[in-house]
Amino acid sequence: MNNNAVILLSGGLDSATTLAIAVNEGHDCYALSFDYGQRHHAELAAATRVAAKYPLREHRVINLDLTQFGGSALTDSHIAVPTEFAEGIPVTYVPARNTIFLSCALAYAEVVDAQHIYIGVNAVDYSGYPDCRPEYIRAFQQMARLATKAGVEGHPVKIHTPLIQLSKSEIIKTGYDLAVDYALTVSCYQADNEGRACGQCDSCRFRAEGFASAGIDDPTIYQ
Amino acid sequence: MNNNAVILLSGGLDSATTLAIAVNEGHDCYALSFDYGQRHHAELAAATRVAAKYPLREHRVINLDLTQFGGSALTDSHIAVPTEFAEGIPVTYVPARNTIFLSCALAYAEVVDAQHIYIGVNAVDYSGYPDCRPEYIRAFQQMARLATKAGVEGHPVKIHTPLIQLSKSEIIKTGYDLAVDYALTVSCYQADNEGRACGQCDSCRFRAEGFASAGIDDPTIYQ
Repeated sequence: MNNNAVILLSGGLDSATTLAIAVNEGHDCYALSFDYGQRHHAELAAATRVAAKYPLREHRVINLDLTQFGGSALTDSHIAVPTEFAEGIPVTYVPARNTIFLSCALAYAEVVDAQHIYIGVNAVDYSGYPDCRPEYIRAFQQMARLATKAGVEGHPVKIHTPLIQLSKSEIIKTGYDLAVDYALTVSCYQADNEGRACGQCDSCRFRAEGFASAGIDDPTIYQ
Repeated sequence: MNNNAVILLSGGLDSATTLAIAVNEGHDCYALSFDYGQRHHAELAAATRVAAKYPLREHRVINLDLTQFGGSALTDSHIAVPTEFAEGIPVTYVPARNTIFLSCALAYAEVVDAQHIYIGVNAVDYSGYPDCRPEYIRAFQQMARLATKAGVEGHPVKIHTPLIQLSKSEIIKTGYDLAVDYALTVSCYQADNEGRACGQCDSCRFRAEGFASAGIDDPTIYQ
């Protein structure tokens, strides 16, 4: 049996760390990114920069325009990205995004015969997205077991979420120990074309607090 | 609460019947089709013809090129469509297709605030696809409940599979009673641009046998 793994790679801090973990665990890695109409297109450029640092089997970028559905500040230019924390599920939530991304990862895993999918979801310093919770991931894995030819044939895919119980600070320390170059990553929801961060959105705040708490120099460049 | 429903509409016999059932059950229907790089592009034209027959809220066609993954005779021109029945899961299986389609339906349902998704999967006269089985659908619904804002807020989506236990003949009789115009539909895996069927693939055979068994005139036009 091979040791192939599909890694969802957004270009942010979390997914870069996840890729480093999968590589470190000895997998033959197939990175998967999406051009999904995200406002922060700098994220996708970051994914390409991060991917280039590792000996991957492949880095595939899939065109899947989620703006065709609308409904989120991250894909709908008519909804403003908030700069203040609000209770509940925020407008930056993209409907069913992780489900769509994991479903595509599942298709890719079947095609390249991978039994492992890595996704950098996090249930601690997260923004209240339902599709970042452990119970969601377990339910997806159970569904995937029944969905696929590999699952039916007794080789179900395993969904790995190595960051799910880590704080942002712990994620950064983990990546630092694995020599992740965080200067290549972009976390900001509204980064400019050069990848410079706004410093005001949820994602920027979690990132800055994480570096501060980890006691590691923050390489983020702000607008 | 509204009565909105998202209907996956491929343009084949099964999904046309499913749409007629959803309309007949009084839903406000949002039909969803995919331009996924299928060889049989006539199917998508059929979806548009079928959709035009019903008072839908909307018919949305999403571009989602599954040939970016490859791995199936239906999306990879290097794999021939078989004309003989073979044991096991056939090469016309598209990796994770129903999972990807249902995930997109889930996103669409969240955006239009629909609590119902209809999909015309069938576990009787089917081609051995794992993602057509009742246990798969149940697992998807369970995952969807945990994945979405609506699910978290106590309004989980329900996946309806009105055809899942029907034979092809029973599906055709059901649609006939609901005045479905099957002449508009295309089932063939390799229909020509005018929608004329090959008469040799699995899908053509199931369809022809279904009409014969139902005792209903078959409007299919062959090449």
